[in-house]
Amino acid sequence: MALETTPNHTQTVAGWAAHDSFGKIVPYIFKRRVNGVNDVSIKVMYCGICHTDLHFINNDWGITMYPVVPGHEITGVITKVGSNVKNFKIGDRVGVGCLAASCLECEFCKNSQENYCDQIQFTYNGIFWDGSITYGGYSDMLVADHRYVVHVPDNLPMDTAAPLLCAGVTVFTPMKDCQLLESPGKKVGVVGLGGLGHVAVKMAKAFGHNVTVISTSPSKENEAKQRLGADSFIVSTNDEQMQRGKRTLDVILDTVSAQHSLGPVLELLKVNGTLAVVGAPDRPMELPSFPLIFGKRSVKGSMTGSMKETQEMMDVCGKHNITCDVELIKPDQINQALDRLARNDVRYRFVIDIAGSSKL
Amino acid sequence: MALETTPNHTQTVAGWAAHDSFGKIVPYIFKRRVNGVNDVSIKVMYCGICHTDLHFINNDWGITMYPVVPGHEITGVITKVGSNVKNFKIGDRVGVGCLAASCLECEFCKNSQENYCDQIQFTYNGIFWDGSITYGGYSDMLVADHRYVVHVPDNLPMDTAAPLLCAGVTVFTPMKDCQLLESPGKKVGVVGLGGLGHVAVKMAKAFGHNVTVISTSPSKENEAKQRLGADSFIVSTNDEQMQRGKRTLDVILDTVSAQHSLGPVLELLKVNGTLAVVGAPDRPMELPSFPLIFGKRSVKGSMTGSMKETQEMMDVCGKHNITCDVELIKPDQINQALDRLARNDVRYRFVIDIAGSSKL
Repeated sequence: MALETTPNHTQTVAGWAAHDSFGKIVPYIFKRRVNGVNDVSIKVMYCGICHTDLHFINNDWGITMYPVVPGHEITGVITKVGSNVKNFKIGDRVGVGCLAASCLECEFCKNSQENYCDQIQFTYNGIFWDGSITYGGYSDMLVADHRYVVHVPDNLPMDTAAPLLCAGVTVFTPMKDCQLLESPGKKVGVVGLGGLGHVAVKMAKAFGHNVTVISTSPSKENEAKQRLGADSFIVSTNDEQMQRGKRTLDVILDTVSAQHSLGPVLELLKVNGTLAVVGAPDRPMELPSFPLIFGKRSVKGSMTGSMKETQEMMDVCGKHNITCDVELIKPDQINQALDRLARNDVRYRFVIDIAGSSKL
Repeated sequence: MALETTPNHTQTVAGWAAHDSFGKIVPYIFKRRVNGVNDVSIKVMYCGICHTDLHFINNDWGITMYPVVPGHEITGVITKVGSNVKNFKIGDRVGVGCLAASCLECEFCKNSQENYCDQIQFTYNGIFWDGSITYGGYSDMLVADHRYVVHVPDNLPMDTAAPLLCAGVTVFTPMKDCQLLESPGKKVGVVGLGGLGHVAVKMAKAFGHNVTVISTSPSKENEAKQRLGADSFIVSTNDEQMQRGKRTLDVILDTVSAQHSLGPVLELLKVNGTLAVVGAPDRPMELPSFPLIFGKRSVKGSMTGSMKETQEMMDVCGKHNITCDVELIKPDQINQALDRLARNDVRYRFVIDIAGSSKL
């Protein structure tokens, strides 16, 4: 098929950008394309702050194109609809996650796995079909191809739903791949109780599993159990607890993005168990062969989800009333929030009130 | 069930042992138990030298109980049969691999996965049910519980079949787990062309797959293709070849036991591909998150095979006439062979002619 290109970037948009690797976010006025036939325009209401934003702002991976307007956990309301768009109308409550474009023609795009298309482009710091650099959700409006937009269920608040677009689908997809949606009663571990981990606990509980949180912070035990509903808690630095937990879990989601060894975590898995890695440490993880081999265990990667999976995740969250625990901030508090996020000082996700619709 | 114990270790056996971590193998006279009701006695004909032997001889893992009589790739002929043994008779051609005992009562023992029993004991450097230390196949006879013995098909020579008992089943089991036995036409990679790798190539070809060998040694290309039947060869240090191989393989078996990064190997896998790790590097492997996550790939461990899988592997090798390429040595050449093995200078497995039945 011929791709629709919209070279006319004539709409002026107010946003927030980092201009260099010093990482300070400042107000930034830039242009977006006019709404094309396959596009929807979205008034951004809320945008979550993902740990990935921090990596791009600081150019940790050496691939940042400045100025960068971060943000890929976006909720908002449709204000314009292209003539080819049938599934959205003005006023719809929608979400945009990590994906902005893919080739639409490869086996992955054709089989609703476009997140693995090798020409995938992201919502910010990507190159759109028309050659323009993509700008994310730290901005008051967005133009998105309708194929990369999902509906937000009516019962979900727009602020606490925003982080579902990345954090939510990132943990949902491996859970689905590990058959956790259809077979309750499994023993599920969640390593790391941050933005991803806390929603993984909520989902695993909603799907009927026995959930163990594995964390370096003993202080999180009460919260994990009482607030999020976890059944057990293991302090990963406590040898006795780790020893007692050996060979007890069917599936573990490792959400930690700091450098760490997978060995002790693997030991917690039963024989044939799966460790789903969704965090993305900068440096290689350590994988000792013995716990892998002697337990016939698997370490499986997973990268966000397809658009179909994102919509399914949204619908499942609507059904079970799952949202994220967030700290709402105003746009002028972004830098402060990023500082705290770098120290993992957030319970559990910062969400920017872009449209000023909440009383903070 | 009550375990049969045979505390009467009164049979004098001639073998070869290392007495300390200097790693020199010398003749050694020791005792074995008399043949119990569940046992068979085996005149050892051939014993392969596995890389694991080297680790135990040198105490690389810090768990060697000296004197150690290595050897877990054993073929021989039955000379005695216990009264409870129905499936073997005197004169049978049999093989013994890595396993000497397991609990017989856990879920793994009950489901023919006794290689994952957490009380598993190995053919040497293990503790048998009667409390005695196990001694391996570098010896002229062996007493083994019949549950850990397999038949060798009539058409397989005893010398070239010996390494199947460890090298063979170690690569067979993950191939079976990855459905390579029943679905031909896959693109299969084999990393490392040693004792395990060369038999993996033969099996993958016999099962109808397109096989790519990935090796650091360009000199092995001809042999891989002409002698072993590989379809393609990638030199892992050649960036252009590695680049061209990206996203081309369905399954890769990594047989390398030296420390290495899994990143470049993972890149060769298609999305959703599986890297089966069967080598056991002493130090942790490096697992970079990006190729794991962006390709939804899996790294899966596998440790030898169950007795049922070992017999199945033997039968499959009999059917396809698969044996190992070996260098036959006399017992007084073991030290020299170990030196060469430490330098990976062997095509592809040393096999000790224990009974002196071959003209070397």
